[in-house]
Amino acid sequence: MSAARSLLRALPKHAAARRAVVAPRALHPVSAPVVAVRHASTIPPRAEQFTKVTAEHVKALRGLLGSPSSLISTLDGSATVDELVTYNDDWMNKYHGKGQVVIRPKSTEEVSRVVKYCYDNNIAMVPQGGNTGLVGGGVPVHDEVVISTAGLNQVRSFDPVSGTLVADAGVILEAADNYLAERGFIFPLDLGAKGSCNIGGNVATNAGGLRLLRFGSLHGTVLGLEVVLPDGTIWNGLKTLRKDNTGLDIKQLFIGSEGSLGVITAVSILCPRRPKAMNVAVFSVESYEAVQQVFAEAKSHLGEILSAFEFWDAQAYDVVRHHKAEVGEEVRKVFETEGPFYCLIETGGSNGDHDEEKLGNLLEDLVTEGKVLDGVLAQDSTQFAGLWTLREGIPEACGKTGSVYKYDVSIPVKDMYSVVEKVRLRLRENGLLTGDGQAEGPIKACVGYGHMGDGNIHLNVVAPKYTDEIEAAIEPYVYEVVSELRGSISAEHCLGQMKAGAVHYSQDKNSLDQMRRIRKLYDPKGLMNPYKFIL
Amino acid sequence: MSAARSLLRALPKHAAARRAVVAPRALHPVSAPVVAVRHASTIPPRAEQFTKVTAEHVKALRGLLGSPSSLISTLDGSATVDELVTYNDDWMNKYHGKGQVVIRPKSTEEVSRVVKYCYDNNIAMVPQGGNTGLVGGGVPVHDEVVISTAGLNQVRSFDPVSGTLVADAGVILEAADNYLAERGFIFPLDLGAKGSCNIGGNVATNAGGLRLLRFGSLHGTVLGLEVVLPDGTIWNGLKTLRKDNTGLDIKQLFIGSEGSLGVITAVSILCPRRPKAMNVAVFSVESYEAVQQVFAEAKSHLGEILSAFEFWDAQAYDVVRHHKAEVGEEVRKVFETEGPFYCLIETGGSNGDHDEEKLGNLLEDLVTEGKVLDGVLAQDSTQFAGLWTLREGIPEACGKTGSVYKYDVSIPVKDMYSVVEKVRLRLRENGLLTGDGQAEGPIKACVGYGHMGDGNIHLNVVAPKYTDEIEAAIEPYVYEVVSELRGSISAEHCLGQMKAGAVHYSQDKNSLDQMRRIRKLYDPKGLMNPYKFIL
Repeated sequence: MSAARSLLRALPKHAAARRAVVAPRALHPVSAPVVAVRHASTIPPRAEQFTKVTAEHVKALRGLLGSPSSLISTLDGSATVDELVTYNDDWMNKYHGKGQVVIRPKSTEEVSRVVKYCYDNNIAMVPQGGNTGLVGGGVPVHDEVVISTAGLNQVRSFDPVSGTLVADAGVILEAADNYLAERGFIFPLDLGAKGSCNIGGNVATNAGGLRLLRFGSLHGTVLGLEVVLPDGTIWNGLKTLRKDNTGLDIKQLFIGSEGSLGVITAVSILCPRRPKAMNVAVFSVESYEAVQQVFAEAKSHLGEILSAFEFWDAQAYDVVRHHKAEVGEEVRKVFETEGPFYCLIETGGSNGDHDEEKLGNLLEDLVTEGKVLDGVLAQDSTQFAGLWTLREGIPEACGKTGSVYKYDVSIPVKDMYSVVEKVRLRLRENGLLTGDGQAEGPIKACVGYGHMGDGNIHLNVVAPKYTDEIEAAIEPYVYEVVSELRGSISAEHCLGQMKAGAVHYSQDKNSLDQMRRIRKLYDPKGLMNPYKFIL
Repeated sequence: MSAARSLLRALPKHAAARRAVVAPRALHPVSAPVVAVRHASTIPPRAEQFTKVTAEHVKALRGLLGSPSSLISTLDGSATVDELVTYNDDWMNKYHGKGQVVIRPKSTEEVSRVVKYCYDNNIAMVPQGGNTGLVGGGVPVHDEVVISTAGLNQVRSFDPVSGTLVADAGVILEAADNYLAERGFIFPLDLGAKGSCNIGGNVATNAGGLRLLRFGSLHGTVLGLEVVLPDGTIWNGLKTLRKDNTGLDIKQLFIGSEGSLGVITAVSILCPRRPKAMNVAVFSVESYEAVQQVFAEAKSHLGEILSAFEFWDAQAYDVVRHHKAEVGEEVRKVFETEGPFYCLIETGGSNGDHDEEKLGNLLEDLVTEGKVLDGVLAQDSTQFAGLWTLREGIPEACGKTGSVYKYDVSIPVKDMYSVVEKVRLRLRENGLLTGDGQAEGPIKACVGYGHMGDGNIHLNVVAPKYTDEIEAAIEPYVYEVVSELRGSISAEHCLGQMKAGAVHYSQDKNSLDQMRRIRKLYDPKGLMNPYKFIL
């Protein structure tokens, strides 16, 4: 016992040295370095039945808003094409809309008036939050009017007895969490884009993120929603009760509907008490088998205080280090013994001493049984953030290294990593990858990382630029693999433009029929976020 | 500290003596002692468009089943009227259907064939699980064919890595939990009727119960469903992934739909690890204010290990004791100092020593700060079950004492108990109650108890028998009170027959319109569980 403890307790100096290595927590959006190309064939043609917006429409829409600056458009000269780029293009620069009108209403009533006008005039719309999505769900495909929720950014109420937060859809996730932190509570969702993403967008895309293992999905934590329906009607479903069993739970339909059923304008969500103590430890391990063993041990030892279990492969770690070196940051050695896999364990509990004892027992078992190669344990909040950056820095480093094909899939844990191995093999067979996941082929890296506890892996293929050849090598192959492994082609990034055509790999005809009929029920004209999601 | 500890630690002998007092955990159904009367005016007339079932139909339906005994009917003499009573009447003997056909299919395919036949022939149906509901949702109103899921009772699979259980809808909740207990897991739902209720019925009614505080609602834990839709189509939405973000989450519609959208035939649900250690303590306190203070302290001290926080009033406790005395059981004194309220705290964690220390610190604070009058702490599993019986025995004792008007509502915690006080006052004003909640008026008792952590209170009015006069005194008054307090008229018992006409107290017109349109989308003929729910 003491040997194990001393090995891991001896690491603070080692870990402290890493303060210089770790960057602040990665925040989207980061701009991609190259101009993107997208399969023209996958873009559905513009629907002829939708009205082409004119300067006349713009004038009328502007008249519905309290502040004239809440609408910008190229049609009346209030904006240039360049000024609309941040609304038309996604942050990865992969999807490029041609919207000519962007509206940022300042109240639910303004959203309602604008949506009603568009509905009555057959004008297609796309609701947009922080534009941090990864599948092109929040940007126009053709000339849809962008309805941004960024102007709806107030906390409406918070009840410290029940932990219920009611806030506008445009409140930034990190701002909501900071607000809660001051009151001893925590937002039950956390993800890399927290500095930019909006809570309305999180709900619309059913975001999963880093805390799902502990706090569950938004389907369990969201208590109510306010939604402007496609015809402009305001639906007040903003309930704050933990239990309400009076009819169909219709708010659930909007969670993960990607704006296809209306514009979410406010969210009521149940927030837990913020843990009084948090710990994080990172390990190098010798195989994916070992990652699974560490996960099983962590669940057994830590039980209710296990708040996250993340993993990544050596290739992902290399991309992070190469990126650091390229931008001139010092890259120090973190692990005495490196391995093909790494895993991160976070605990959060109400009693620091108890948590440390539980974690200590786990570390002892892992070390004495030889289940890990090396490990580091954060000794303070700076190190805590630093160790997290080893994991959270991966998407940013990939994005800075090249154009990234991102696949977010869920697969039963046992087979989860095989999707990365199979795609690597496929890329090699196509002459696109010559190394073991990075560096030597046209593909710069093919890496895997994700949320072990949720059976959710992120496969990132980093290319010099987006090309049809690379896309054709990966898709639909990757979806076929996921389908064979009985997984889901989208674990937490929704469908958007990217996966709309691949949804049949995860949903059967009957399920899709039900979804289409519900979509049609809410939006018979098909004006809300067209060309995407369930077609 | 030591004083507080010794006070509570000194109780084992005291608690051990209670072994004789406490009955085994209450299991529904228990039969009510008197014949019920129900407002004839609240029963919607039989819909003329529904086909009257004949011996011919019965013959055809029987031909669709593998075993002839899977169908019993008065129409062909295979059953007497009395033999159908357990399917036609609810366990409280409050609702009385006139169904002439009961079908217990043995496979999903059989359910599908039967439902298709009924759909094609315009025959109304009512899906039925364990018939343990409290609002008449699972029994026929007129002559609907009962489709019981009792014959679907197999566990299909369990994955110990993810904790995912896939089981037929007719598996009894307690059987599912026992199955999981043997494997170190726990069903994320627990309720008094666990010995009889079916997991399919639990999902169909979105049951809440005792573990919701810890494990969240079924909207978060159910991963997938298999449903026979109203036209007989089998929808295979039986997914087992924790994350799947590919389109609208349609399974959510069926959770809490009370059989109005189809017959749930199988459930996939995420089950947590069973806590290694569990503790329970019960306190007497001097006011509802004090209950709230104890709740706040418990959340602060126990954090992630707090698994239940229940409360009840002295009137409820008296009903339990009087019932015990009446049936000849020995009634011992549990608390040195009794009070107007009692609360029960349960913890469940992965380390018994840690949990006991956290609980010890809480008890010390409560005693030294004078927030409780007296307390008892279970010392072994028998006492654990015994203390739970003080709370779980309430519905059974009420049911054995008289005919019970049961109201299950959720209200913000601060105002929760006032609904009981207001209804008592109302009963007094109507001359129906002369004491302070029990004994002296025509009403035998008016008691309150419930799940503090969920803002969910159960109001039980115990009458000698169901009468129009009593019902008129309580309804719709109780719903008006709940509506004024911004609560929900059904926290966890759904709507059924009882609350179908009162749903407007908790849902606005727009919400009801959405529900009706979805119901119509799934069941255009309105054959599935008619006369109830959302009319």
